[in-house]
Amino acid sequence: MGQDELPIGAAVIGQSGGPTAVINQSLVGVVLGLRRGLHAQGKVTRILGMRNGVRGLTEGRLTDLTGTPQAVLDRVAATPSAALGSTRDKPDRAYCQRIFESCQTIDARYFFYIGGNDSSDTCRIVSEHARAAGYDLRCVHVPKTVDNDLVGNDHTPGFASAARFVVLAHMADGMDNAALPGIKINVVMGRHAGFLTAAAAAARHEEHAGPHLVYVPEVPFVMDRFVHEVAGVYDRLGRCHIAVSEGLQDKDGRAIGGLLMGEEKDAHGNVQLSGSGALGDQLAHLLKAKLTPKGGKPPRVRADTLGYLQRCYPDPSPVDAREARLVGEHAAALAARGLSGVSVTLGRESTPGPGERYACAVGHQPLEAVAAKTRHLPAEYLHGTCDVSGAFLHYVRPLLGELPPFELLE
Amino acid sequence: MGQDELPIGAAVIGQSGGPTAVINQSLVGVVLGLRRGLHAQGKVTRILGMRNGVRGLTEGRLTDLTGTPQAVLDRVAATPSAALGSTRDKPDRAYCQRIFESCQTIDARYFFYIGGNDSSDTCRIVSEHARAAGYDLRCVHVPKTVDNDLVGNDHTPGFASAARFVVLAHMADGMDNAALPGIKINVVMGRHAGFLTAAAAAARHEEHAGPHLVYVPEVPFVMDRFVHEVAGVYDRLGRCHIAVSEGLQDKDGRAIGGLLMGEEKDAHGNVQLSGSGALGDQLAHLLKAKLTPKGGKPPRVRADTLGYLQRCYPDPSPVDAREARLVGEHAAALAARGLSGVSVTLGRESTPGPGERYACAVGHQPLEAVAAKTRHLPAEYLHGTCDVSGAFLHYVRPLLGELPPFELLE
Repeated sequence: MGQDELPIGAAVIGQSGGPTAVINQSLVGVVLGLRRGLHAQGKVTRILGMRNGVRGLTEGRLTDLTGTPQAVLDRVAATPSAALGSTRDKPDRAYCQRIFESCQTIDARYFFYIGGNDSSDTCRIVSEHARAAGYDLRCVHVPKTVDNDLVGNDHTPGFASAARFVVLAHMADGMDNAALPGIKINVVMGRHAGFLTAAAAAARHEEHAGPHLVYVPEVPFVMDRFVHEVAGVYDRLGRCHIAVSEGLQDKDGRAIGGLLMGEEKDAHGNVQLSGSGALGDQLAHLLKAKLTPKGGKPPRVRADTLGYLQRCYPDPSPVDAREARLVGEHAAALAARGLSGVSVTLGRESTPGPGERYACAVGHQPLEAVAAKTRHLPAEYLHGTCDVSGAFLHYVRPLLGELPPFELLE
Repeated sequence: MGQDELPIGAAVIGQSGGPTAVINQSLVGVVLGLRRGLHAQGKVTRILGMRNGVRGLTEGRLTDLTGTPQAVLDRVAATPSAALGSTRDKPDRAYCQRIFESCQTIDARYFFYIGGNDSSDTCRIVSEHARAAGYDLRCVHVPKTVDNDLVGNDHTPGFASAARFVVLAHMADGMDNAALPGIKINVVMGRHAGFLTAAAAAARHEEHAGPHLVYVPEVPFVMDRFVHEVAGVYDRLGRCHIAVSEGLQDKDGRAIGGLLMGEEKDAHGNVQLSGSGALGDQLAHLLKAKLTPKGGKPPRVRADTLGYLQRCYPDPSPVDAREARLVGEHAAALAARGLSGVSVTLGRESTPGPGERYACAVGHQPLEAVAAKTRHLPAEYLHGTCDVSGAFLHYVRPLLGELPPFELLE
């Protein structure tokens, strides 16, 4: 498809799902990419931001970004959370039809949606509606998720900054645990995929540093084994530092967190796992009950749930900030090359391992390849029932940015 | 008391209570202050670190810091948490007698203890035992607490870094709340004093920025009024961002958190408030139950408990890092001037307000003045039942260090 055949009209851009520390980099990347490309060429007439994603689009709530000063955009890019507002709506076919009609109404010909796998599915359905109606609408999905669970990507924008926060949190909290020994549980985001929880292992800056145990959804969670593993570390070190995923599952795929919490569900039918401390508290109670010696004092057990700060803390990984901008720019470039119905991908040119000179590579894949699918931690990134492998550490380390050099007094 | 009369012997230094992001600055301040002063003058023969505070001292667990390279000390100073280890022990008179005897055994003549008001009380009792025995032991307390609740201080080392974290957390999480509107509760540390929770108000970087409501222990918490205040903001803005203290109390002084949590107590007789998400979860349940319209959907209510990261996150306020070092150095200087039975104080030379050129001032007060007392938010720092005053914001802002310039898309 050549550039001559490109339609002329507005471009709409939206942000969807849980915000991240760098999702605005992607937004600004799309805007600046369009200005340099399709807008300069007269194909894109206006650049419009959807307020609260497709919900705002269907309600006519749009922000004109065509002429927003670059200096403002650069500051927006460095601000966490979704500057246009986000939405948890997961449009069904009727909703997608309304989205498509809203595009028609404002003569939008380019549709960019920044989000996770639910958002790529929205892109896909809207694209189908437009095609069925014979309306030339170019749809490009821009990946974003702290969960790192989009297939076809080495990693996704948003993940590295969340991972950086999780690592810094575990580095510091691990020192706290060493100073006042006890059992400490930290609950990490990740509904289905354990990448973010696994990243906590990169906090081990010295031989005895935590987290000593790492529990991800990919390894079925067995209560008794958990107690046994914690007891083992506690007996050996006099303390135990533990990272657990909010998405812990038993062998039948039932979410441990959800079961403990009464199964409140959001609009996607997903159990609410964030914004509650229940999983950590329940695990802490369990350990206290099981590990109290006969006639003795219960061990000191505490649980923190790292919560929303994981996706918004204003200290993004520089790698992530750069790449989130890049995938946005690439989305605009793909549209300028005449592509539609695609999702931008983030690959890796370098090979993880000692001496790696990290380099990423942007590309694209069909929406069908990514939409509504979930990527999990592969087996080679796991080690036993409660740890990650060296291969995972090699994979994740270049994404985190510089870490502080903690020093101990021996 | 002149310098000629100073005893000759070892100096012991310990860290006590909850660690902070800058308590190691104070440790290193004492060590370097001694090296330049009393050690250089031959009065201090060895500089010994107590492992896990007075517990390690009584068990003979000591680390010799006399010759630790300055480069190592500088890296330790920049590392969060207590490098010597800490303790929750609150010694009674018999324990304090053992502490004093341990000092005698190793010929320690200088006793430096870094901690909060419990630690200053330990200092005081040990000092009394030594005096009663006619043993010349110079005792100096070095203030430390994220709660900012030591009397006789403008603020305490550790508070500013915790406040910085709380402010950055609320700035970012407030943007998240704006992007995906709902009711969000953040539970902030502070068992008796609301300084840290109050600091969250400094996160308001624009007119509608949260936290919209701030609840501190100094204002008796009334359930119905809370629900009413939240509903008011929610009706007006379509969202509500709330900071609550873990130490919320009802009018009879009963801790709301403790009541909900089953009153687990630590060795100090304090109810366990940190390391659990129960208070936030209970408040979230309450709001959902009370704010669900008849026949309608419950509002989206989430709670995060900021947890231990408040005291250890490795991004200290530069002001705090500098001042924590300074109070450690000053403790050594006070001992060199022949003082004993004193606590270092952190005052303020400048006047809070617009155009303030912030400057701190170190000093000292008798241990009796600070020991086992609690400072609360003064009335002039409060505004109504759910906010802080402009005076408080003037007070806290210079302590936080630079904050990121968030930008909105209007």
